[in-house]
Amino acid sequence: MLETFDNQYPDRRYSIEIVCPEFTSVCPKTGQPDFGTLTITYVPAGKCVELKSLKLYLQQYRNLGIYYEHATNRILDDLVAALEPRQMSLRAAFSARGGITTTVTASYETSPKT
Amino acid sequence: MLETFDNQYPDRRYSIEIVCPEFTSVCPKTGQPDFGTLTITYVPAGKCVELKSLKLYLQQYRNLGIYYEHATNRILDDLVAALEPRQMSLRAAFSARGGITTTVTASYETSPKT
Amino acid sequence: MLETFDNQYPDRRYSIEIVCPEFTSVCPKTGQPDFGTLTITYVPAGKCVELKSLKLYLQQYRNLGIYYEHATNRILDDLVAALEPRQMSLRAAFSARGGITTTVTASYETSPKT
Amino acid sequence: MLETFDNQYPDRRYSIEIVCPEFTSVCPKTGQPDFGTLTITYVPAGKCVELKSLKLYLQQYRNLGIYYEHATNRILDDLVAALEPRQMSLRAAFSARGGITTTVTASYETSPKT
Amino acid sequence: MLETFDNQYPDRRYSIEIVCPEFTSVCPKTGQPDFGTLTITYVPAGKCVELKSLKLYLQQYRNLGIYYEHATNRILDDLVAALEPRQMSLRAAFSARGGITTTVTASYETSPKT
Amino acid sequence: MLETFDNQYPDRRYSIEIVCPEFTSVCPKTGQPDFGTLTITYVPAGKCVELKSLKLYLQQYRNLGIYYEHATNRILDDLVAALEPRQMSLRAAFSARGGITTTVTASYETSPKT
Amino acid sequence: MLETFDNQYPDRRYSIEIVCPEFTSVCPKTGQPDFGTLTITYVPAGKCVELKSLKLYLQQYRNLGIYYEHATNRILDDLVAALEPRQMSLRAAFSARGGITTTVTASYETSPKT
Amino acid sequence: MLETFDNQYPDRRYSIEIVCPEFTSVCPKTGQPDFGTLTITYVPAGKCVELKSLKLYLQQYRNLGIYYEHATNRILDDLVAALEPRQMSLRAAFSARGGITTTVTASYETSPKT
Amino acid sequence: MLETFDNQYPDRRYSIEIVCPEFTSVCPKTGQPDFGTLTITYVPAGKCVELKSLKLYLQQYRNLGIYYEHATNRILDDLVAALEPRQMSLRAAFSARGGITTTVTASYETSPKT
Amino acid sequence: MLETFDNQYPDRRYSIEIVCPEFTSVCPKTGQPDFGTLTITYVPAGKCVELKSLKLYLQQYRNLGIYYEHATNRILDDLVAALEPRQMSLRAAFSARGGITTTVTASYETSPKT
Repeated sequence: MLETFDNQYPDRRYSIEIVCPEFTSVCPKTGQPDFGTLTITYVPAGKCVELKSLKLYLQQYRNLGIYYEHATNRILDDLVAALEPRQMSLRAAFSARGGITTTVTASYETSPKT
Repeated sequence: MLETFDNQYPDRRYSIEIVCPEFTSVCPKTGQPDFGTLTITYVPAGKCVELKSLKLYLQQYRNLGIYYEHATNRILDDLVAALEPRQMSLRAAFSARGGITTTVTASYETSPKT
Repeated sequence: MLETFDNQYPDRRYSIEIVCPEFTSVCPKTGQPDFGTLTITYVPAGKCVELKSLKLYLQQYRNLGIYYEHATNRILDDLVAALEPRQMSLRAAFSARGGITTTVTASYETSPKT
Repeated sequence: MLETFDNQYPDRRYSIEIVCPEFTSVCPKTGQPDFGTLTITYVPAGKCVELKSLKLYLQQYRNLGIYYEHATNRILDDLVAALEPRQMSLRAAFSARGGITTTVTASYETSPKT
Repeated sequence: MLETFDNQYPDRRYSIEIVCPEFTSVCPKTGQPDFGTLTITYVPAGKCVELKSLKLYLQQYRNLGIYYEHATNRILDDLVAALEPRQMSLRAAFSARGGITTTVTASYETSPKT
Repeated sequence: MLETFDNQYPDRRYSIEIVCPEFTSVCPKTGQPDFGTLTITYVPAGKCVELKSLKLYLQQYRNLGIYYEHATNRILDDLVAALEPRQMSLRAAFSARGGITTTVTASYETSPKT
Repeated sequence: MLETFDNQYPDRRYSIEIVCPEFTSVCPKTGQPDFGTLTITYVPAGKCVELKSLKLYLQQYRNLGIYYEHATNRILDDLVAALEPRQMSLRAAFSARGGITTTVTASYETSPKT
Repeated sequence: MLETFDNQYPDRRYSIEIVCPEFTSVCPKTGQPDFGTLTITYVPAGKCVELKSLKLYLQQYRNLGIYYEHATNRILDDLVAALEPRQMSLRAAFSARGGITTTVTASYETSPKT
Repeated sequence: MLETFDNQYPDRRYSIEIVCPEFTSVCPKTGQPDFGTLTITYVPAGKCVELKSLKLYLQQYRNLGIYYEHATNRILDDLVAALEPRQMSLRAAFSARGGITTTVTASYETSPKT
Repeated sequence: MLETFDNQYPDRRYSIEIVCPEFTSVCPKTGQPDFGTLTITYVPAGKCVELKSLKLYLQQYRNLGIYYEHATNRILDDLVAALEPRQMSLRAAFSARGGITTTVTASYETSPKT
């Protein structure tokens, strides 16, 4: 469902940061909604993500029961599969529950940093 | 008392940050309550900490007399024992006493960073 | 238990604001601790509150099960009884529970404002 | 569905402010989710709102298509019907769409302010 | 060009605030672009402004040469003509030129405030 | 030296706020430069101040020895003489000297506020 | 010890605000230093306070044992005696002790506000 | 169209950062204006960019339809061609669309960093 | 005069940060008081500093004439002598004098960082 | 004109940061004043800069026409000549002109960092 468009500067190692402060899913344990801010940062290879399709992709989690840690890793995996980037990281900062705030950060890269 | 759940992405080196701004214990010298914010950051191996049990674990310090430095190190040791993480750090920022603010930071790792 | 000292400027209508960001009590429903910031503002008549005794008075709520609304009103009543001020207000801002934050504000005065 | 509990201080004119930063509904025109922060302020008469039921009540809007202006007024009407407060105001600040941010504020009171 | 929709709560005196941080016009003297943030606040009578049409209306100023003071008053006049509100104010905060920042605030109301 | 242009909306009581954070003069006692931020707010009658001429007018103080209080009142008098506004206030916030910060606020109006 | 200079604009009702963030005195009970920020606001009649002498006057409290409430009122009385202003207020915000912050505000005026 | 002036310190490796918060272009897909802040950082070799010409150069994008990623890379290429710097980076932070914010960062350098 | 207590975790390389925003000394040149914030960060070996004794130690500077640079280095030397830490740094940020702010940072370590 | 005093800790590699937010010079092109904040950071060898003489030195630029880039490099050269430091950097952040803000950063060191 994630759409892409061609990166017109494939030879330059540059980065794109996308902040989505309106992510929401459902806690699989309590059935209560969770809210969070996703920050996606990637170095494109041949493809860039189309923002409208990203927005619709993230809305699929709106009524889905899933833990923070799994949501973070699954979104990263889906984006990596669709974009085949040189490098990507995903930071997911969830709002407080029971006075405790959780942020999960995962990353992917094809080769050691240079 | 700390409960865990299985990390479903054990092969990925990713991090989890948990902020607990409602930590309180008692000063062993004066008997007065202390307040602080704990920031736990770890790279899970096989296990992740369950947040509700973490909250209950930290509440055990509510009426306990203990120094800042010892509380910080003891909580780190307990979390390391329960989670056996690849890496963990604990930052404990206590509120001012006598116009002086103290922050204690300790960390654990199984091997040198890569 | 609240101690007072004599107001040396009883003829001047001046105000004293006291902020206590380390208030904690227990939720009577869930048994979980609550945290809040109390802001007491008063115009003294003959007496001022002694700060050390105020601190010890507030610590009595540390392990007490009580609702936000009742704690706020009870503390106001106790302070009014001890200080007999010209005017007093109490603002109690509690930290978020379930993504919802509550602030209760109550006030007392002996006569209409001038 | 909104539950209440008895106000134990019905003779005192005091106020309760409740902030809900996790409100979300659906735009009836585009089908896209909207996000906002609700701030409810009221002076209770005989009843106070129970927070858990308020949270569940607001979750009913999660998948409902409704305009900002109507959601704000409807929630105010429902809360007034359930609580019969002396006074109530509702401020709903919605996040930006097309670079434009909207905040709707409505209020109710039984008699002129004193 | 400004479109409206019916206010479903015409009997309640409530307010709508709309913030547009992406306003731009052209300085008639220098030909250089100006940038500003418009804050529209109004109490609707029978009609509310449709946001998409407001956005398109404001884009008409993008390549128009006009002074700050005149733009502010003209936009207010156009909105009042289209909405016939009970009350409306417009605050236009322009970004600095030559180290000097200007904010123009104008308002309209059908009757004295109550 | 202050230039003006015609107010095209003389029948509307609206306000213009101008912030000048780059005001500098010289302390007549020590010969050291002083720095401050001027905030001019006025309700125009027939004339508005032209910003470029205001900037040049204020630069006349750059090498002038004058006390804070006198500079504030003199600038207000000069602006009132040039603009004949319905109302004007001038707030001059000077940067700290010897750990002490001073802000002088003066205002003018032709008739009581309505 | 407080020196003054002539107000050159005695017919205009304007205000002067002076912020002194470096006030320090000694707690008469514990012998420990206290720290605070004083904000003096006054409408001058015939005299303005000379800032250097104000600074030296406040330094007299550096090693003096005195309670917050008394220091605030005494400084106000001394300034009123020296300046004979139309109106004056003093806000003294002291830094936290035992997690509790106190602000004392007192004011003087020769006649009701207009 | 980009003008330059000679760098008088060509032997020193120093940096120049230029922030342009008033960049605007048009979305090629929707025809709607986009807004962003450009941050240009470079280490000059023989030439520095003249700011007025930079401002006029950026205004050429005001009515141009172009994607974020392409605008960022094209501006970087044009600046590199005109200035032949030792090093240059361009960070373009665009304002939110559909609740999603994008920042593109690209850089150029003649040789590995030292 | 600086007292210490035993570090119960001598084998762990952890850090303690202590912030003292209420440091004051006297300028040896002008006799005027100076104010600053000290930030002490250290990795303990066998001993930790007792906070009350640190507070009393710093109060010895209250009426002492000493330059910023010397005070910073002397305090560092005294703390190193008393604690024999693995590593220590001291950052002293002094408040503005004549519009100029100074921060002195010095550090000590027994061996190169690992 | 820059005066120095002896560094009493010449064997310790420590740093001194001096922030001067009140720098002003004149644009050589337009004759208009420019304003900026200078941040000087250095590791002293045998000499430290005396602050009063630094202040007077910087005032020499008050009525001097000079470009940002040249002023920054010239001040750095003058300070290096007077202090012969181990290391020095100068960051000059100028206020916005035409909506564009410029910051120039230059540095000097006698040998590679350790």
